[in-house]
Amino acid sequence: MSDRFADAVASMPILGAMGIRLVDVGPGRAVADLPAEPNVNHFGVTYAGSLFSVAEMLGGVLSLATFDLDADGELAGFVPLVKESSIRFRRPALGVVRASTSLSDDEVARVRRDALATGKGEFVLEATITDAQGEVVATTLGTYQLRRF
Amino acid sequence: MSDRFADAVASMPILGAMGIRLVDVGPGRAVADLPAEPNVNHFGVTYAGSLFSVAEMLGGVLSLATFDLDADGELAGFVPLVKESSIRFRRPALGVVRASTSLSDDEVARVRRDALATGKGEFVLEATITDAQGEVVATTLGTYQLRRF
Repeated sequence: MSDRFADAVASMPILGAMGIRLVDVGPGRAVADLPAEPNVNHFGVTYAGSLFSVAEMLGGVLSLATFDLDADGELAGFVPLVKESSIRFRRPALGVVRASTSLSDDEVARVRRDALATGKGEFVLEATITDAQGEVVATTLGTYQLRRF
Repeated sequence: MSDRFADAVASMPILGAMGIRLVDVGPGRAVADLPAEPNVNHFGVTYAGSLFSVAEMLGGVLSLATFDLDADGELAGFVPLVKESSIRFRRPALGVVRASTSLSDDEVARVRRDALATGKGEFVLEATITDAQGEVVATTLGTYQLRRF
């Protein structure tokens, strides 16, 4: 895992407090794990807000890994923002869970074109959160924008 | 603020790590504050997942304060669960923000009736998150259920 992505996560103290760990990040994809502790709620299952967070933060990480946002990059000066997000809880989350999302090559190209042409590239990410048995515990849908900062 | 509600929040370590503080809780209403630190993201504004959490957790607190879930209460054996939730981010959140929600007396009565009759009482909470200037930084819509545990 590139230090660059780990540094971005580490720069946000509350994600560190949740114990979120990047597992796989590359162009068009991002995967992260969330441990049970310290995210358990008073029923002994993982708290809704921590499940939301491990899925939501993938949007920022995927953006960094997919779009060239570096100072000398094609999209220099753009930042990823989340506009809205929804989560559906399917079953209680026990133990370590894994959140995964991806964006197709066609969508990546379209977002890049929109951003360069209009200063704003919007995209929707679906993320799935599964437990160690592969059961889906929650699904999310997030709307993000690359915006000129 | 009743120790009972503060204890419920304190039993969830990640809410403590966010610095969430209950401000006003009573039948049909719940209000909580979220400080900026340690919830700041890499842009220096409050992280999306912390905003989600301070609004989402109101559903549990409001349920405790509104429905008699005690061991000898009318709804003994019921617990509040969140089924789905959405959040819309309106503007960058700076400084302490406050999340507020409420449930009308009619809805409280309807949820209690449904729970007793069917073992499940579902309700929707709208929450608003405002900054110190009273500007709305985010709004949420959460679907909760009182379920027989």
